[in-house]
Amino acid sequence: MTGPTPVRIDDPADARLDDVRDLNHSDSRPDLPGGKGLVIAEGPLVCERLLASRFPARCLVGFPDRLAGFLADHPGLPEDLPVYEVTRETLREVAGFDMHRGLLAAADRAPEPGLEEALDGARTVVVLEGVGDHENIGAIFRNAAGMGVDAVIFGNGCADPLYRRSVRVSMGHVLRTPFVHLGGTHTTWQRRLEELRSAGFRLVSLTPDPGAVVLPEALADAAGDAYERVALLVGAEGPGLTEHAMRATDVRARIPMAPGTDSLNVATSAAVAFYERDRSLGFPGVRRG
Amino acid sequence: MTGPTPVRIDDPADARLDDVRDLNHSDSRPDLPGGKGLVIAEGPLVCERLLASRFPARCLVGFPDRLAGFLADHPGLPEDLPVYEVTRETLREVAGFDMHRGLLAAADRAPEPGLEEALDGARTVVVLEGVGDHENIGAIFRNAAGMGVDAVIFGNGCADPLYRRSVRVSMGHVLRTPFVHLGGTHTTWQRRLEELRSAGFRLVSLTPDPGAVVLPEALADAAGDAYERVALLVGAEGPGLTEHAMRATDVRARIPMAPGTDSLNVATSAAVAFYERDRSLGFPGVRRG
Repeated sequence: MTGPTPVRIDDPADARLDDVRDLNHSDSRPDLPGGKGLVIAEGPLVCERLLASRFPARCLVGFPDRLAGFLADHPGLPEDLPVYEVTRETLREVAGFDMHRGLLAAADRAPEPGLEEALDGARTVVVLEGVGDHENIGAIFRNAAGMGVDAVIFGNGCADPLYRRSVRVSMGHVLRTPFVHLGGTHTTWQRRLEELRSAGFRLVSLTPDPGAVVLPEALADAAGDAYERVALLVGAEGPGLTEHAMRATDVRARIPMAPGTDSLNVATSAAVAFYERDRSLGFPGVRRG
Repeated sequence: MTGPTPVRIDDPADARLDDVRDLNHSDSRPDLPGGKGLVIAEGPLVCERLLASRFPARCLVGFPDRLAGFLADHPGLPEDLPVYEVTRETLREVAGFDMHRGLLAAADRAPEPGLEEALDGARTVVVLEGVGDHENIGAIFRNAAGMGVDAVIFGNGCADPLYRRSVRVSMGHVLRTPFVHLGGTHTTWQRRLEELRSAGFRLVSLTPDPGAVVLPEALADAAGDAYERVALLVGAEGPGLTEHAMRATDVRARIPMAPGTDSLNVATSAAVAFYERDRSLGFPGVRRG
């Protein structure tokens, strides 16, 4: 069998474990204090997705049994991938807390695709504004991947999709689904939505506003046909999309809510919108039973 | 203005604060070690819902400013409701952690309605099996309330909906939406599904099984009309519903997923199913813009 050879490390101070040291901070963005900007994957499924991703892997670290199982299941890993075998106690001391999953991988960040590249071949994209919670970002990627959304576009004020918690909650889909940050300030990023419109995307704002059209109506043209390309805009829980952002879109759509209730969680709203979009297309690409 | 009069308490040992003492444990079920079985609401919105609910309120506790604002907004509260004004420091010491929302209410548990009572007038109910996570339980109640689900039915192995975290994540909807525990063991509770069928409910299992029919098809009859009464069965993330439970239902339905992805989070799946059910009914009871 080919593949990397695990190296046993028992000294928590060993510099080869620096990538997984003080894990509560090591995944912070490089521009933040103490941030190394690494991408950290936890558990076999997400490690597998990281090692298959465009993010350059730096190392794989795990308990002896977890590591042996993973290496046996993944015989094609590059021989020069550093693989470190550690005990639970050693990893706890290095990582700063008990990492019961027992398997970690670290990678470098990688440049984002350009917007044009991310849109190439895409039928459905989601555009996020002000989604500042890492778990919601992760959940949105998970839901997007599950329901056929091709790319995630970041407007202003969103949490980092490569933060460890985002990676975990996304089940590694932040490493697979292309994403692009539009840049600009909170009043200028929307200008780049024009590029989506030029590419043929119907721009749909999601809002709890009772004056908005119901979601299914927003996703089909007057003849009842689904738009060929759709960009779904989703804003932060609470404030929602800014008026500025909504004005830059073609239509405002709402998920009908029972009277006297609250709006849905942002990742849940997004999931419902992704579902309705997939439904409007007749659930393409989905194996029929 | 009528209403209760706040009593200032500065001694963290004061027994009148026992309801909010050691909050990480006080909401455990009465049958668990240290469990007092209280219902705890946090923050003004959930406190409001608790005080308007069928659960007998025991007290309201808050920082001076939060309490004053809440009492001004709720002039109709009973005069005999114990209301205690505490500093942030006092509450931290009593509760066991920093409670930055600054407003808490405690109530006693109350008997559940019977199944027949919970089903009375209901068009859509959800039946849960093995949903052991408090946040998922809370999120399911929130999503149910938002999308017109009338009752939550508990099969075997679910987390406590009245646990503090469930209450919080549900935004207080566990205090408003009727719920019933069917009782029985993991192989006997399903017999009571027969009572739903007798009441005219179409029993629909949610499953990731690619052999299941797609969700919209499961919710309409051969003529394309939505079933009058529907019970949506949802199982734990990972294992899903037991075969035993699914066999007791009329149809197995799936949310179509993109190839190579994972199933959705259980509360997200439920939200999509609630949405599709509401959609199949033409979004009744929803104000049109």
